[in-house]
Amino acid sequence: MPGNTIGQIFRVTTFGESHGEMIGVVVDGCPAGLEMDLDFIQKELNRRKPGQSKITTQRMEPDQVRFISGIFEGKTTGAPLCGLIQNKDQRSKDYSHLKAQYRPSHADFTYESKYAHRDHRGGGRASARETAARVVAGGIAKLLLKKSGIEMIAFVSQVGSIRLKKRIYQIDFSQIESNSVRCPHSSTAKKMIELIQKISKEGDTIGGIITGIIRGCPIGLGEPVFDRLHADLGKAMLSIPAVKGFEYGSGFEGAELKGSEHNDPFIQEKGKIKTTTNYSGGIQGGISNGMDIYFRVAFKPVATLIKPQNSHGLEGNNTRIAGKGRHDPCVVPRAVPIVEAMAAITIVDHLLRNRTSRISNSSFQ
Amino acid sequence: MPGNTIGQIFRVTTFGESHGEMIGVVVDGCPAGLEMDLDFIQKELNRRKPGQSKITTQRMEPDQVRFISGIFEGKTTGAPLCGLIQNKDQRSKDYSHLKAQYRPSHADFTYESKYAHRDHRGGGRASARETAARVVAGGIAKLLLKKSGIEMIAFVSQVGSIRLKKRIYQIDFSQIESNSVRCPHSSTAKKMIELIQKISKEGDTIGGIITGIIRGCPIGLGEPVFDRLHADLGKAMLSIPAVKGFEYGSGFEGAELKGSEHNDPFIQEKGKIKTTTNYSGGIQGGISNGMDIYFRVAFKPVATLIKPQNSHGLEGNNTRIAGKGRHDPCVVPRAVPIVEAMAAITIVDHLLRNRTSRISNSSFQ
Amino acid sequence: MPGNTIGQIFRVTTFGESHGEMIGVVVDGCPAGLEMDLDFIQKELNRRKPGQSKITTQRMEPDQVRFISGIFEGKTTGAPLCGLIQNKDQRSKDYSHLKAQYRPSHADFTYESKYAHRDHRGGGRASARETAARVVAGGIAKLLLKKSGIEMIAFVSQVGSIRLKKRIYQIDFSQIESNSVRCPHSSTAKKMIELIQKISKEGDTIGGIITGIIRGCPIGLGEPVFDRLHADLGKAMLSIPAVKGFEYGSGFEGAELKGSEHNDPFIQEKGKIKTTTNYSGGIQGGISNGMDIYFRVAFKPVATLIKPQNSHGLEGNNTRIAGKGRHDPCVVPRAVPIVEAMAAITIVDHLLRNRTSRISNSSFQ
Amino acid sequence: MPGNTIGQIFRVTTFGESHGEMIGVVVDGCPAGLEMDLDFIQKELNRRKPGQSKITTQRMEPDQVRFISGIFEGKTTGAPLCGLIQNKDQRSKDYSHLKAQYRPSHADFTYESKYAHRDHRGGGRASARETAARVVAGGIAKLLLKKSGIEMIAFVSQVGSIRLKKRIYQIDFSQIESNSVRCPHSSTAKKMIELIQKISKEGDTIGGIITGIIRGCPIGLGEPVFDRLHADLGKAMLSIPAVKGFEYGSGFEGAELKGSEHNDPFIQEKGKIKTTTNYSGGIQGGISNGMDIYFRVAFKPVATLIKPQNSHGLEGNNTRIAGKGRHDPCVVPRAVPIVEAMAAITIVDHLLRNRTSRISNSSFQ
Repeated sequence: MPGNTIGQIFRVTTFGESHGEMIGVVVDGCPAGLEMDLDFIQKELNRRKPGQSKITTQRMEPDQVRFISGIFEGKTTGAPLCGLIQNKDQRSKDYSHLKAQYRPSHADFTYESKYAHRDHRGGGRASARETAARVVAGGIAKLLLKKSGIEMIAFVSQVGSIRLKKRIYQIDFSQIESNSVRCPHSSTAKKMIELIQKISKEGDTIGGIITGIIRGCPIGLGEPVFDRLHADLGKAMLSIPAVKGFEYGSGFEGAELKGSEHNDPFIQEKGKIKTTTNYSGGIQGGISNGMDIYFRVAFKPVATLIKPQNSHGLEGNNTRIAGKGRHDPCVVPRAVPIVEAMAAITIVDHLLRNRTSRISNSSFQ
Repeated sequence: MPGNTIGQIFRVTTFGESHGEMIGVVVDGCPAGLEMDLDFIQKELNRRKPGQSKITTQRMEPDQVRFISGIFEGKTTGAPLCGLIQNKDQRSKDYSHLKAQYRPSHADFTYESKYAHRDHRGGGRASARETAARVVAGGIAKLLLKKSGIEMIAFVSQVGSIRLKKRIYQIDFSQIESNSVRCPHSSTAKKMIELIQKISKEGDTIGGIITGIIRGCPIGLGEPVFDRLHADLGKAMLSIPAVKGFEYGSGFEGAELKGSEHNDPFIQEKGKIKTTTNYSGGIQGGISNGMDIYFRVAFKPVATLIKPQNSHGLEGNNTRIAGKGRHDPCVVPRAVPIVEAMAAITIVDHLLRNRTSRISNSSFQ
Repeated sequence: MPGNTIGQIFRVTTFGESHGEMIGVVVDGCPAGLEMDLDFIQKELNRRKPGQSKITTQRMEPDQVRFISGIFEGKTTGAPLCGLIQNKDQRSKDYSHLKAQYRPSHADFTYESKYAHRDHRGGGRASARETAARVVAGGIAKLLLKKSGIEMIAFVSQVGSIRLKKRIYQIDFSQIESNSVRCPHSSTAKKMIELIQKISKEGDTIGGIITGIIRGCPIGLGEPVFDRLHADLGKAMLSIPAVKGFEYGSGFEGAELKGSEHNDPFIQEKGKIKTTTNYSGGIQGGISNGMDIYFRVAFKPVATLIKPQNSHGLEGNNTRIAGKGRHDPCVVPRAVPIVEAMAAITIVDHLLRNRTSRISNSSFQ
Repeated sequence: MPGNTIGQIFRVTTFGESHGEMIGVVVDGCPAGLEMDLDFIQKELNRRKPGQSKITTQRMEPDQVRFISGIFEGKTTGAPLCGLIQNKDQRSKDYSHLKAQYRPSHADFTYESKYAHRDHRGGGRASARETAARVVAGGIAKLLLKKSGIEMIAFVSQVGSIRLKKRIYQIDFSQIESNSVRCPHSSTAKKMIELIQKISKEGDTIGGIITGIIRGCPIGLGEPVFDRLHADLGKAMLSIPAVKGFEYGSGFEGAELKGSEHNDPFIQEKGKIKTTTNYSGGIQGGISNGMDIYFRVAFKPVATLIKPQNSHGLEGNNTRIAGKGRHDPCVVPRAVPIVEAMAAITIVDHLLRNRTSRISNSSFQ
């Protein structure tokens, strides 16, 4: 049973392989009447695209999205939106040596075992190229969120063991895009970039962590009991290639705290109910409480190494394998817009779901 | 749009409030022909039930499940199974003082904001009592997994800052049920119990971490690209009350590693392909690879404190609030069977989903 | 993959066998804040229950529904509603002779082939008893529709070859409940009742047709392209036991008409756009247009005969079989509330779905 | 909430407007390992395409499908298949006069009311052009069914009041494609063609009926209680533009029969259980019983007339309107492959769903 769709009302389906003719996305359930800012969506794609800086892969893919449905006279019609991205610089030959090998910690072995028929070129559907389609859908979601006053922010908070040591309220988010690693603190960013460059020269790769924040989220999003807002947010993040963990609010550190330390007292401020602290991470009982939602997403190091490693040949022989393609030494800088996209998709879906939670004051419509 | 169902084929729907007449579960999609071992399911429920030891709440609920459908002559028929559990010792009066108050870090405020009509007795649907229904469904899932040779294990690996410092392969899982905190290492367990008792005397609560392991999982479970096995597992865990984080395999620590350290080399052993290390946590590209799946789940401290804390009254006044009910000082010992149940439900669902992934050798049936 | 749930947002799941302990229904997705009129729902059930008149089965089932969740202080909370109905007068012994036989045109053979394990008592899930649970859910849906000013009407328009020869606008719907066959025309009703009594004396059964009307349905319900309003309505009707056909608007007769006869011209009346004729049956392009929705549902004769018929024994022998239970000679009088229930469930689901079809004027919420 | 997807496991999503750049389909859940016979799929499309004979619209659309994903080395990989069809001869200008008018019995008024933003060119999503995408998906489904020995047949059995008066077992299906109206009886076909040509000259249109047959369907397809096989089949048919009714087996005529006439006695023939008659239409209790499944689908006359008719202008004025485009005088000849496609999609989905209905003999996999 397939799993290429996410969302219950705002439904995002991606398709296409890394080395096929094109990849694409169908967004069904986008409300009618949204002005489509195609430039904005292209800019989001550009933030994800390869070759954008010295610390990303040097593959050059223009990643131009073309919408072929669902828009009329500049606005969404309520019909499904289909966006297509041509694959250009894919160089399938770079992968021909992989036909008879399982790359360590890649999806080669599991796909072949599951389907008994595998597209060995560049990972097929398992390639992170698929996430370009997500960024297109996320761009549409962000346009909707803009109309709701909801802001989606993400940045790199850790590369290897180099951490951004600021607390969230101390961070100047306007600095995120000021450097190629997308860390909003220039001296930390510099260290991260240096580490990535060093690792890259070794033919190796390194992991990292992205922090996400959702500001201005209305109270009431999230559906008891299984579709808690953070559960759907967590699933969306864990569905991104290379992600190994998700935590929100106090997260794993919260496990060490006492209730008297962790509880967030309510206060009333200008007629609005708020909490004085926010260990809850903006979500209580699975439903947003109006405070900032924040979360952290852990990414493992990219599995494709330039330096040789042991592998397994399909003929049963053990061999040495080395990456010949052009790959990222660290995935997190380019994953920032992907994290934002998946968060935006989740929030829009829950905004729409929440429209059906109660009868109106006077009548049922 | 509701969220009380989890699973695509093995579909689990829970219903009922903590202080209503009963709670229950409908399991639709359980394959026909399974021998129902009702004793086993009751034993699972007993592992979760309150009052089982000195470190859990002293509420006494017998938590007897009664199946009213889907079973004929001891076997499942393919029809939906409904299990009901009577609520007995709920003492609604204990909660009457909460009608006009939002308890800090509870779901009172968010439920009332979302639905404009709230059952204030003991949290209603937000109460962890709802998880008894999950354990019933999980019991059915475990019976199915037994027939597949898949084993579901969970234990407490951390309470507050007391950690079990063993690696997974060093642990004797037969010791899990040998103590009331469900930590399979007696001296660590003893420290955990002492900490919980100390915290309890203070009228406070403490968080903790549960580690889960799935052994014997066949290769090929998990659906690209959004329904990756760990994404669905993560959502299932994050849907449990009080959970703040989920990681699998190398998890957050994996973010600090290099690719050359983190990649799991393939080897062939007795005709089977395995990996020599298992940073992948048994899942590659979102699909199980036959190695042990392991994951960690972080729980925050219980929000209900016996000692007084600041709160917010509905009349806009700020007040002091203290828990009058009987509550757990630490949720993790009782949450062990819940973690197992949610993992079992997820794996069964993916086993059934995987039945449709390819055409048979000779024909399509 | 199971099929015991209908609806996308207003989700109705039924469970329980005809001769089990109870049957029941979970309604998830009912908006919070609805006043639950339990008397109304019980009255709906009474319209369906056996033994209500001389032309229905003489089984006596009180069919009392008890809600155990989702209601607090008389209103829905947004949590799933579970309603349970005890089975009382089921007399399983009446069916013990069927253990080794497949009754003609019943589901015995197909269930046993599909599941390899069959509850032979009275049809199990295939029994029309399951529809009592649907009437409970339909009652909740009707309460919601009342708040929207939408009216659900159904009546018997044909029994065997006796037809009600009035056009819809000529019918006095207040007469539907004035006779036991639920045909709103006294002389036609009398003939229908006489036919049913004659057929019953012969130990035989007879089919019939129910006409349904939805008045006051707002413009805009129905979702392109697969979830057209009439497609979902048709599926809901075809899911009722014994239904063989569904048509709406001009239906099968429309196939004989020319476009110039069939098209419904638009006019404007008091600022509202209407059509002068209504061959469209209130639905155009799969979306309601504000005119009356009307449809017809064909029911086959009940398969259980009192008079003997040929059958097939499990031992391979061909035998004679005769119904020993107490059965309806004609199903349509009792099916009227079931048709209404399924229509109400469908309309409520689409009302809720339609809440998400566009952005609001000024913003996206 | 959107409705552009049909199927639970074999999931078909269509997108694109009649006068946009292209239309397309994503098929997710097609099992891996199917040899893709692209010629076969193109031939199916050719059977639906406009301009194929004198009695269809004279628009010339090549309707060439191009697959951009999901296929590798000639076989499906388990990844979503995306097929695209360029729109070529759409002449949007033909529709510019419709911007300010609602065409009678079209979807113009309802789409505009629902979405407040309408693509007025040729009906947008409501256009029957969308069904080309369904035929592509249906072609894939038919390739799967071929491997199962299941045959999908459909033919025109009525145009206006001209009926094919043969019973199903008397029909030579090899004659279906021998004439342009797709009626497998040459003298009846001749009369139908003459009627369509006469109606066409009048600038008018006419309705008709298609009969469908599924042969070789295994026993056990269909899911109690809502997803009965005929309920899903009925929904699939009712989702086709212009369809007004669906019946299977004895259908509406069955309502006039007695149980003793309608019941299908079981017999055993060469070790197989069959029925001597087939009023059940191959489905009992919603589950296939191995006999031929047959059904009838009623189509209304096409709403676009060349001769003038009254309409409603958006400015509130009543006007005269006449079709300027090139339209079919009768839709049923071209709808035959669409009916087959929707039936094939439904059967494949239920074949896959049925894979999960029971545990295997020895174990659970």
